[in-house]
Amino acid sequence: MKKILAIDAGGTKILYAVINEKGEFLTKPQKTETPKDITSLANLFKEIISKHEKDIDMTAFATAGAVNITNTRVDSSTPNMPEGYNSLDFSTLSSKPVFVENDANAAAWAEYKTGAAQGEQNTITITIGTGIGGGFIVDGKLLRGKSGRGGEVGSMKIQGRGRICTCRRKDCFEGYASGTGLKKTAEESALNDTAFKTSIYKSKEPHNITTYDIIDGLKVNDEYSKKVFDIWKNDLITGLINIVNIFDPESIIISGGMGKFIDIKEIEDKINAETVVSKVKVKQAEAGNYAGMIGAALLAAEKY
Amino acid sequence: MKKILAIDAGGTKILYAVINEKGEFLTKPQKTETPKDITSLANLFKEIISKHEKDIDMTAFATAGAVNITNTRVDSSTPNMPEGYNSLDFSTLSSKPVFVENDANAAAWAEYKTGAAQGEQNTITITIGTGIGGGFIVDGKLLRGKSGRGGEVGSMKIQGRGRICTCRRKDCFEGYASGTGLKKTAEESALNDTAFKTSIYKSKEPHNITTYDIIDGLKVNDEYSKKVFDIWKNDLITGLINIVNIFDPESIIISGGMGKFIDIKEIEDKINAETVVSKVKVKQAEAGNYAGMIGAALLAAEKY
Repeated sequence: MKKILAIDAGGTKILYAVINEKGEFLTKPQKTETPKDITSLANLFKEIISKHEKDIDMTAFATAGAVNITNTRVDSSTPNMPEGYNSLDFSTLSSKPVFVENDANAAAWAEYKTGAAQGEQNTITITIGTGIGGGFIVDGKLLRGKSGRGGEVGSMKIQGRGRICTCRRKDCFEGYASGTGLKKTAEESALNDTAFKTSIYKSKEPHNITTYDIIDGLKVNDEYSKKVFDIWKNDLITGLINIVNIFDPESIIISGGMGKFIDIKEIEDKINAETVVSKVKVKQAEAGNYAGMIGAALLAAEKY
Repeated sequence: MKKILAIDAGGTKILYAVINEKGEFLTKPQKTETPKDITSLANLFKEIISKHEKDIDMTAFATAGAVNITNTRVDSSTPNMPEGYNSLDFSTLSSKPVFVENDANAAAWAEYKTGAAQGEQNTITITIGTGIGGGFIVDGKLLRGKSGRGGEVGSMKIQGRGRICTCRRKDCFEGYASGTGLKKTAEESALNDTAFKTSIYKSKEPHNITTYDIIDGLKVNDEYSKKVFDIWKNDLITGLINIVNIFDPESIIISGGMGKFIDIKEIEDKINAETVVSKVKVKQAEAGNYAGMIGAALLAAEKY
């Protein structure tokens, strides 16, 4: 059975482990901080690989950023990774095959192969954290598009309120329905909604209210927090309806740090009340924090 | 070589012809009006089929409405077709195989196999007429979703101005970027834009201005018509950007009655200035008015 060294390269941390082609862990996942410059990062990758190289058949990266069509490098500037990340040719890091895939795509593949979407040939995983990522499985294949950059669902412009996104365009899905979007909604509501005046956060500066303040506010039934969260949830649903109408998937898998705060059944009902296609199932992700590693490893094993 | 009787069933007319598996016409396409009740329509289908049945291998329908996953019937109510259309089991119409596909999907397949998108494995055809239809080719396969209803791009909610769609939801892509959407934009602009006061249409009631008035106005440089058309074009571009960011396709093919009025190069430039994926080509459709028949025939020939 093939053995794959899987490395999940994110903006704050690097995870790695050896995984077999069934998605089972052969070593305990390790975690280390992401170096701030590209030379240190490349050296760290080389170090991790050289430590495992004799025992593995290939290396698989799940990474932030758009990955090219041949799965060898990151093809865009990725604000969370060190400058020059897109000049790194991953295939030079090892004498054995190296495979690279976008982390949201890898997570979707993990859900499809080993997680909440097993057996579903048309399924979409939406990863909601600081930003929003999408991975689309169409007829059992990962949608990558002509250049590998497909699935950029965070940049979808939705029916919104004119909010400017960090990308400087208006009404991006990510600008509303990400964790950052929730914080922004909290700030706007503090300025506009009278419920703020009686909120547990009333003494805070609106721009200092955090995503986690709102999550905490829900637990103590803070009216303002509930209103903010409802607006955020509706923005999320608006984007998901678009996706469901286009893809008619069997399921939408909700992944990422924000996912666990969502009432999945409520989201499912609201989506199904508005779509023109047949009913979709909405589920919590199951592949967990290691979804990126698992998905990348399984995709690499299919390729090499 | 297989011979397919292709029938394009639309709300106002029925087209039919015998086509071979290369998409070549073996008989001259015929046109007849769509009967108003389901019994007459079913009888017309039977009559057309029985006339050709001994010379063909199968029948292929391109039709308005969402088609089921087994390509045997229409699965939704379709306002433009007679009531009861979704209770018609097409397979009972002939002793030979009968295949049914949504007309926008069939048109996309025709563009991919014989038209403007030949050789492009990831390509999307947007049919802009009274409404908006989408056909999505992903990795050389038609995207149908779990139930066959995929591609309902007209129901995508875009960044809009709160317009209520005929489906009674807000900010649907179809509500803005269809031919009907252009008429609606014309009416709104007549009420709000001072350019209307000096327009060639200034004596018309705003709700009586038609889609074709605006197209005609462009030809004589009517300022109001140009403004209306620019708003419509930007709404169209907004929706296309969403699609391109998700699918990263090689091309977008513009089809349907409204397509020919569009400056394709301008649309392409504006899309490519805003998407986060790699550049897309925008092209006029080539398969023409018979795209539905051709696409359905070729899909049927692959299946049977």
